[in-house]
Parts: sequence; C-alpha cells; structure tokens
Amino acid sequence: MFEQLTPEEIEKRSFEIITRELEDTELAPDHADIIKRVIHTTADFDYVHNLYFSDGVVSKALRAIQNGVSIVTDTRMARAGINARSLARFGGEVFCFMADEDVALRAKTEKTTRAAVCMEKAVSLNRPLIFAIGNAPTALIKLQALIERKAVRPELVIAVPVGFVNVVESKELMMRTDVPLIVARGRKGGSNVAAAICNALIYKLGKPEK
Amino acid sequence: MFEQLTPEEIEKRSFEIITRELEDTELAPDHADIIKRVIHTTADFDYVHNLYFSDGVVSKALRAIQNGVSIVTDTRMARAGINARSLARFGGEVFCFMADEDVALRAKTEKTTRAAVCMEKAVSLNRPLIFAIGNAPTALIKLQALIERKAVRPELVIAVPVGFVNVVESKELMMRTDVPLIVARGRKGGSNVAAAICNALIYKLGKPEK
Repeated sequence: MFEQLTPEEIEKRSFEIITRELEDTELAPDHADIIKRVIHTTADFDYVHNLYFSDGVVSKALRAIQNGVSIVTDTRMARAGINARSLARFGGEVFCFMADEDVALRAKTEKTTRAAVCMEKAVSLNRPLIFAIGNAPTALIKLQALIERKAVRPELVIAVPVGFVNVVESKELMMRTDVPLIVARGRKGGSNVAAAICNALIYKLGKPEK
Repeated sequence: MFEQLTPEEIEKRSFEIITRELEDTELAPDHADIIKRVIHTTADFDYVHNLYFSDGVVSKALRAIQNGVSIVTDTRMARAGINARSLARFGGEVFCFMADEDVALRAKTEKTTRAAVCMEKAVSLNRPLIFAIGNAPTALIKLQALIERKAVRPELVIAVPVGFVNVVESKELMMRTDVPLIVARGRKGGSNVAAAICNALIYKLGKPEK
C-alpha cells in the first residue's frame, strides 16, 4: 500500500506538492523557502498570506547566522525543534531559559511572566541574537520595550506567538520597531512555526550531511 | 496598551473566546476540552471537523492515565510539550527514542526509518502505552502492523502526523484497527497537536498546583 520512502524523499516530495499547489501564487524568491517550510510543518496554506517579512530580512538573517548568531526562544518545544547541529556549524547556540530556576524566582518576585524575564536574561548574554517567539505575547511585549530603550538590538525577531489574548496586538506592536522581522500576523503561529522559520533560514545555507 | 495578565488568566480567557466562537457548533461533551485545547494550540478551527474520536476513547484514556500509562512520541518537540510533571502524578513517563544511537544504527541496518524502529523499541518496554504520533507516517504504518500481529495493544493511539506524503493514508490505515483512537484526519496535525491532545487528557484529571 505504501511506497518505501526515506524521510528525505518524503520531505522532497512534500515540497514538490506544496510548490505545485502554490503555482498560481506569487512568492518573493527570498521568502518562498520559508513560507513553504511553514506550510510543510502545519499543512496550513493560510501562512502564504499571514507571514510578513521586513525589508531585506532574509539576507540580514543569513549574514547573522554565518557570523555565529545564537537563537533564543520562549518554549522548550521550539528549542527541541530547531536544528541546533546545523546552527552550530556557524558557531551559534540555541537557548531557552523558561525552565531555569532563577527565571521562575524572578518572575514571582517581580510579578511578571517567566517569558518576560527570559528576554532580559537573553539580553544579558551580550551577544548577537535572533529571538524566535512562538508562544508568549508577554515575551514580545517585553522585547519591544527592551528594543525601544536600546537595551538590545536583535539581528532578527521571529514574532509568531499563537492565540487569542494579546497575541495579535503584541505582534503589531513589534512591527512598530525597526529591527529585522518575520511575523505571522493574526492569531496563528506557534512553537512549531518558530522552529520551522529558524530551520528554513539555516537550511538556506546548506544542510549538514546525515 | 496591554492589560497585565498571568499566563493562567490568558489561558482562561482564550478558552472563553474559543467557547464563544464555537457556540453554534455542537461538540460531544467528552471531546470538547480536547478540541478546544487543540484550537488553543493552533488557532485553527479546522480541528473542529478534523478530529476523529473512537467510541468511548476519552474514558478509556483517562482510566489508562490514572493507572500509570506512559506516553511514547515520535518527536522530541512533542516530548518537550507534554506535561510530564502532570503525568508523573499518576506514575507515567514520557518517552521519545528518536535521538537514541541504537535506534539510528538499527534503522540504517534494516533500511527503515528511525520512527519505525522507535515503535518496536516502545513495544519492548512491555508496559501500558499511549502512542502520540505527530510527525512520522512511517511510525503509524509500523505501529499498525505491530497491532495487527498482536505484538502490542496500545491503550490509545493519537494519530496526528502532519504533511503531504503518506500522511492521510497512514491515518486512515490506523483507523482500520480496533484500538482506542484520536485522529486528525487529513493533512493537518503536528507535534504541537499531539502534545495538546495528551495535555488535554491529563488536565481532565486536574492540573497540578503551580
């Protein structure tokens, strides 16, 4: 009943199907791989219209990755999904501080969310960073405030929280900044989408050998 | 601009919004919490129609959880997303063997996928199991074969791979078995959906204190 296919062959055919189903849709050449990988991850073609890219964001992000940028994310799921091995070829690491005890303690003391505290902890790393936010609007709100007061200048913000409360608004708030941005406008997004966008960018620089 | 809300308050309000938007849709009382949590995770109302539940599956799954069932999943992302602490209250653990060296080696030797080998490794645990499959159709195909030849009798199969190649067919194949099933029919699904369904079930038995 099933043809024997390797995961690599399945992925290749999947992208062929996605490309065929999008043949009447014009995608910017720089964005196409990213949009297709998000659709590959979700089977949801809404992302053709949801995803916003700031001017020149892809080339800026690729340069940052080549220069060894690290990625900070707001969920352990996204951290598990980002291809850390591929990123490590360029010197970058993947961080998620959500489960750290100092973060929990500080969130409690300061009556804020762990996600917001994680953004401050990331800034204190004092190194070039991509922020991949797939869950917490409070992370985006805090990050926007840190950008606004020039405490951090991200190489890229991937703003793709999912949900129904403060999500749409926090993404629109981030879009008022002038940092390089990829945003899933509207309610949709998620840790899987955040990881897919990171991987699509990393894979543009080549996939490692199996 | 933003009201200060805790993650718990955001979740509560989100479920209120989802409930309101579904007020004209009839949901089986047993299934409602699960469907809503998947929508909460994806902001995708297609899951109202995609999700299939076999007869009595929710009460069977809750009984299994209370009896200490463990969960096996096919991605590290889903493992990261399942609330292991809540499951542990009943004695269960969460397993993902995808990154295990013996799995990689055996997949290479047997010219099969790591996901398929993981299913056999799970069976050798020789304990009651829920299978939460969010990525690999090959995992479902192998699992169906193991069920067919009575090598395993899962307490529940959550069959929610996402994608374009063999995905729809592998889910339909699983639906020919008589094991308790929750399936996202069609192309949609994912690790996040697999984790959300596990958590929705676990939370029906109460959430742990923060």
